[in-house]
Amino acid sequence: MNKNTFALKGTICYSRDPNTLITAENAWVVCENGVSAGVFQELPEKYRGIPCRDTKGSLIIPGLTDLHLHAPQYTFRATGMDLELLDWLNTYTFPEESKYADPAYAEAAYRIFADDLKRSATTRAAVFATLHVEATELLMDLLEDTGLITFVGKVNMDRNSSPSLEEESAAASAEATIRWLSEIKGRYKNTRPILTPRFTPSCTDELMKELAVIQKEHQLPVQSHLSENLSEIAWVQELCPNTRFYGEAYEQFGLFGGETCPAIMAHCVYSSDEEIALMKKQGVYIAHCPSSNTNIASGIAPVRRYLDEGMHVGLGSDIAGGFSLSILRAMADAVQVSKLRWRLIDNTMKPLTLEEIFYIATIGGGSFFGRVGSFEKGYAFDAVILDDTNLPHPQAISSKERLERLIYLSDDRNITGKYVSGKKIF
Amino acid sequence: MNKNTFALKGTICYSRDPNTLITAENAWVVCENGVSAGVFQELPEKYRGIPCRDTKGSLIIPGLTDLHLHAPQYTFRATGMDLELLDWLNTYTFPEESKYADPAYAEAAYRIFADDLKRSATTRAAVFATLHVEATELLMDLLEDTGLITFVGKVNMDRNSSPSLEEESAAASAEATIRWLSEIKGRYKNTRPILTPRFTPSCTDELMKELAVIQKEHQLPVQSHLSENLSEIAWVQELCPNTRFYGEAYEQFGLFGGETCPAIMAHCVYSSDEEIALMKKQGVYIAHCPSSNTNIASGIAPVRRYLDEGMHVGLGSDIAGGFSLSILRAMADAVQVSKLRWRLIDNTMKPLTLEEIFYIATIGGGSFFGRVGSFEKGYAFDAVILDDTNLPHPQAISSKERLERLIYLSDDRNITGKYVSGKKIF
Repeated sequence: MNKNTFALKGTICYSRDPNTLITAENAWVVCENGVSAGVFQELPEKYRGIPCRDTKGSLIIPGLTDLHLHAPQYTFRATGMDLELLDWLNTYTFPEESKYADPAYAEAAYRIFADDLKRSATTRAAVFATLHVEATELLMDLLEDTGLITFVGKVNMDRNSSPSLEEESAAASAEATIRWLSEIKGRYKNTRPILTPRFTPSCTDELMKELAVIQKEHQLPVQSHLSENLSEIAWVQELCPNTRFYGEAYEQFGLFGGETCPAIMAHCVYSSDEEIALMKKQGVYIAHCPSSNTNIASGIAPVRRYLDEGMHVGLGSDIAGGFSLSILRAMADAVQVSKLRWRLIDNTMKPLTLEEIFYIATIGGGSFFGRVGSFEKGYAFDAVILDDTNLPHPQAISSKERLERLIYLSDDRNITGKYVSGKKIF
Repeated sequence: MNKNTFALKGTICYSRDPNTLITAENAWVVCENGVSAGVFQELPEKYRGIPCRDTKGSLIIPGLTDLHLHAPQYTFRATGMDLELLDWLNTYTFPEESKYADPAYAEAAYRIFADDLKRSATTRAAVFATLHVEATELLMDLLEDTGLITFVGKVNMDRNSSPSLEEESAAASAEATIRWLSEIKGRYKNTRPILTPRFTPSCTDELMKELAVIQKEHQLPVQSHLSENLSEIAWVQELCPNTRFYGEAYEQFGLFGGETCPAIMAHCVYSSDEEIALMKKQGVYIAHCPSSNTNIASGIAPVRRYLDEGMHVGLGSDIAGGFSLSILRAMADAVQVSKLRWRLIDNTMKPLTLEEIFYIATIGGGSFFGRVGSFEKGYAFDAVILDDTNLPHPQAISSKERLERLIYLSDDRNITGKYVSGKKIF
């Protein structure tokens, strides 16, 4: 028997594909060496006697993936939510991110973030830090301690920000990035670097060229923002007159997916047909951030289309455009805005189903990390235990209904266990 | 000194008008005989020595009002949220409401609801029961025990429902209503009856005529649904060809506001100019239910317009079109959908501000119950204590920001105290 072989027993829920939610009551899911050996209604002979955590009927679901969030914005989430975007950036985002030049402040703030992320249902995340190398490394240290598996990006930005939150030049930004990569080399097991040009308006062509060189040399994935709102798209068109659409502003530097450059693009609310075709061809991951797109009044992304086209879609909390770190909440938010989109924008695009949003939150985003987000044999053993005994009901309800109630009604009290690649987090 | 004179000490927040949020740190709000004597930065001489609950800096806000919810739907909230309206009604609403013919089931279910409502930030509510007299009385008994002040309606419906959830005739419905009113007469201190024709499609003209007689004789307020979605409006037009707009279907029977018939109409998503003018003239209360309007894909109500016209607007959880009993959450939802409305429907109607939604949730809905929803002198002493120590932050934040964080991030753990008309609930 492999080392680290054990089982969880309970009501197991996982996705096979966007239309198939599998539920198994009173069943076992077995972990062997960090990987799922499958779900069993009866424990096979060869596993008899392995350690078993009996959750007494709790739901056991694959870990959830948060494909887009800004860790330094966690401190001011849920404030200034009635400001318009520019006021919000100037009042909160830029002054607050500037404070991360101070490692003591960064550590205090990032510790709150890391503690809460650890307790959440998220097992994998792609995270923006700030432009500050030292603070980014502190964040990576803290995330490594959580046991979660994350990509973390030191942010690059050399234009169009506030004076206190901008790098001196493309060369300085590139140099800081190289120093960061060199300082963290070999330092972490679960925490990986990801190249993070903030978004096209923040990065000169010169910087993008430097980043392309670094990307190739270090074989890094990329994360950024794309087509979040119409004025941003018009601005990019002005800044990059040689491009036909926003995505090309990344693509022209080789920073937009493809085999050697996995990429996550947050939002994609207003992607054009051409942009969508390019994302599809390049296998770009779309981080759908329903709460943020609502709060910043960006609009509603056409997730139904992305799903139907077979593109990669996951969910992002987008802290602090979004105010909640919970990807369970993001699932509910995504279903809700898909209904408003259907009603208000395009009634040919049906709202998302429970099966679809569960797929997106698990396999959809998880696959950016490899075979992640399911309990089918061979998937990384990322699991979350959800106890719903504090949600009483007089009538009988199905496992699917229990899952749906937890998506809409749960908070951290319901999350009673978590495993990442077979490692017990709590 | 009056009996029941005491103070709460903490960070006091209350509304004066839709644009004015008053915050007072380290201040006292005094209750005298169930009524607020005002907020004081220094406790006046005459109150020295009165009992004081020092909340150690917690926020103290006026109690919140829930102007619209269906108590029997609480059991199945947050299930079937990806079904379309008719499927949802047939799968969940009608079969579940039918069960309330059984008093034992009703008691088990309503007890869960009443317990949760008691622990919430809601101090006043207008509640739909079912058509069943005995179950409605059980609900009223349980609500009376909570100490909250509520209006509860036995529902009237004699057409267009499911066979198991319809009264035999207009006469039978009226008779049951009269029996209900007679059985509860003098039985409660805090729990009052409200006339509750489900909505026009559920009530024949004959029934409406009977209800009008009962309304006058018993001087009852009325609650119902109005202009929730377009097909409903078209249906009402078919059923009531003599009316120019939906609201007239109530108005023609004298059940639509005015001095002798206070009325709450839920939703008003698609009210026409004429309907709005009539609601304004009659002082009809609009129960804005943002979560429900999203979940059932009704649309987004023009709350900005209602507010700017000086109409009565409060919030409704609309359990179980809405899935959350929290009016704090409804406040966040209302701001969120107002942003999507601004972006997607009408950019002349600005999103709601924090000040505005706080006013709507407190005074806006509270005024249906009299002088309720503020701490200004003379208002009923409804208060909620909100402890935010589980939401740490490294930076200094203002009282307004603390309030906003609680609106977006709190759950029942943050609600550590509640008073209704000066009576301590917990």
